[in-house]
Amino acid sequence: MTYCVGMMVDKGLVLMSDTRTNSGVDNISVFRKMFSWRVEGERIITVMTAGNLATTQAVVSQLEERMKAPDERDNVLLKSPTMFQVASEIGRLLRHTVGNRQQENGDRGRGRFTASIIVAGQIAGMEPRLFLIYPEGNFIEASADTPFFQIGETKYGRPIILRGYDREMSMEDAVKLLMVSFDSTLKANLSVGLPLDLMVIPRDTFEASHTERIAYDDPYFQAISAGWGDALKHAFHSLPDYSFYRPHPK
Amino acid sequence: MTYCVGMMVDKGLVLMSDTRTNSGVDNISVFRKMFSWRVEGERIITVMTAGNLATTQAVVSQLEERMKAPDERDNVLLKSPTMFQVASEIGRLLRHTVGNRQQENGDRGRGRFTASIIVAGQIAGMEPRLFLIYPEGNFIEASADTPFFQIGETKYGRPIILRGYDREMSMEDAVKLLMVSFDSTLKANLSVGLPLDLMVIPRDTFEASHTERIAYDDPYFQAISAGWGDALKHAFHSLPDYSFYRPHPK
Repeated sequence: MTYCVGMMVDKGLVLMSDTRTNSGVDNISVFRKMFSWRVEGERIITVMTAGNLATTQAVVSQLEERMKAPDERDNVLLKSPTMFQVASEIGRLLRHTVGNRQQENGDRGRGRFTASIIVAGQIAGMEPRLFLIYPEGNFIEASADTPFFQIGETKYGRPIILRGYDREMSMEDAVKLLMVSFDSTLKANLSVGLPLDLMVIPRDTFEASHTERIAYDDPYFQAISAGWGDALKHAFHSLPDYSFYRPHPK
Repeated sequence: MTYCVGMMVDKGLVLMSDTRTNSGVDNISVFRKMFSWRVEGERIITVMTAGNLATTQAVVSQLEERMKAPDERDNVLLKSPTMFQVASEIGRLLRHTVGNRQQENGDRGRGRFTASIIVAGQIAGMEPRLFLIYPEGNFIEASADTPFFQIGETKYGRPIILRGYDREMSMEDAVKLLMVSFDSTLKANLSVGLPLDLMVIPRDTFEASHTERIAYDDPYFQAISAGWGDALKHAFHSLPDYSFYRPHPK
């Protein structure tokens, strides 16, 4: 499995992905799931992928036209006039890749080879945008009501984001929130694993102000992971205690 | 979907289940998923069910032999010498019920009509026991390493139990922990819904010292639900802040 979150706050975009891929539990590897392209001062586009690794790698390869000689390559994402068209194009590639694999495998291919992609970025003159693309190639866009998207193993880390998110939070707090969400997921599910990839894209800069690979020995992540258990226990004990003798509601 | 948790602490067993069943999102009902049988001073056996409602109701009906006239009924659970045999018998009924439904429906039945059951209880002269029964009828038993079982929509509420559980905790704290776990799940997933059923079975009493249906207007649950958001935010802010300028690990 996988866990990726793209989050939009007033100050920009914060993205985090894990790097574990597994086929069964005895075939575990580390693969990057975050890919980014940039035109200086004009645009930055970052995608995060979940699902079948062959499918998502094929989509990224097609985006970069790696089947062509290096000097003939022409990344369509760098020329699309809007983020909407970027999402449409990635959706089209994803749908075709999934569809082709399924078709090639006939009955055995049904329901397999699927993947989901989060697309985040900003193009000069327009707002930062965040999309979630489904295996069918259709997609939805984040809004003030739903300002973040998760893909992969999304459930363990969702309650803390629902509770902790605030669109006015600092980029640093957004990173911290994602670290807590990832820690909760890592603690509960073997198919999500360190290291994590982090990217911070401040609004109107068209570049990542900060990228980082957070490894096993990262002291900040260790502090969050160790501290969150104690902080949760403290939070738990701060709530009113249950009593078997409490008055019943009317 | 459903959410049920059975938890074993030193002082006994604490069980909680939701009551929502849904077929799609526009066909929602309230059904009890917790069933209990007792022989005074000798045994108490409680089951919680998740999965196909027709299957779980059929299993409970068979346990109670409702196909017979009332005075001919003979609940096998009340005579099994050990909790292990209780779990085996429920597993056998579950496997047959699921298997029969699937067979009757041929190809269309494959993979459908499944259900899982948590069985908790104690019989005089023996320890409290907690089992998780799979649709195939096989089962596992809780131990000191894994002292709780969840069925249904288990992921949202798992991190807080992993972090908050302590086998030496009071029964009251165990109830409170389950309320927080259920609140996190309710907040994130429409297929789990209030009211909740709660049962507390102190060790060596062979009865439920406390049963309760926790409804929408329950003031304690409302206090937990409202307070947990604030407590989480406080916990979040108590962790060390992230900085883009922190020293990198060696």
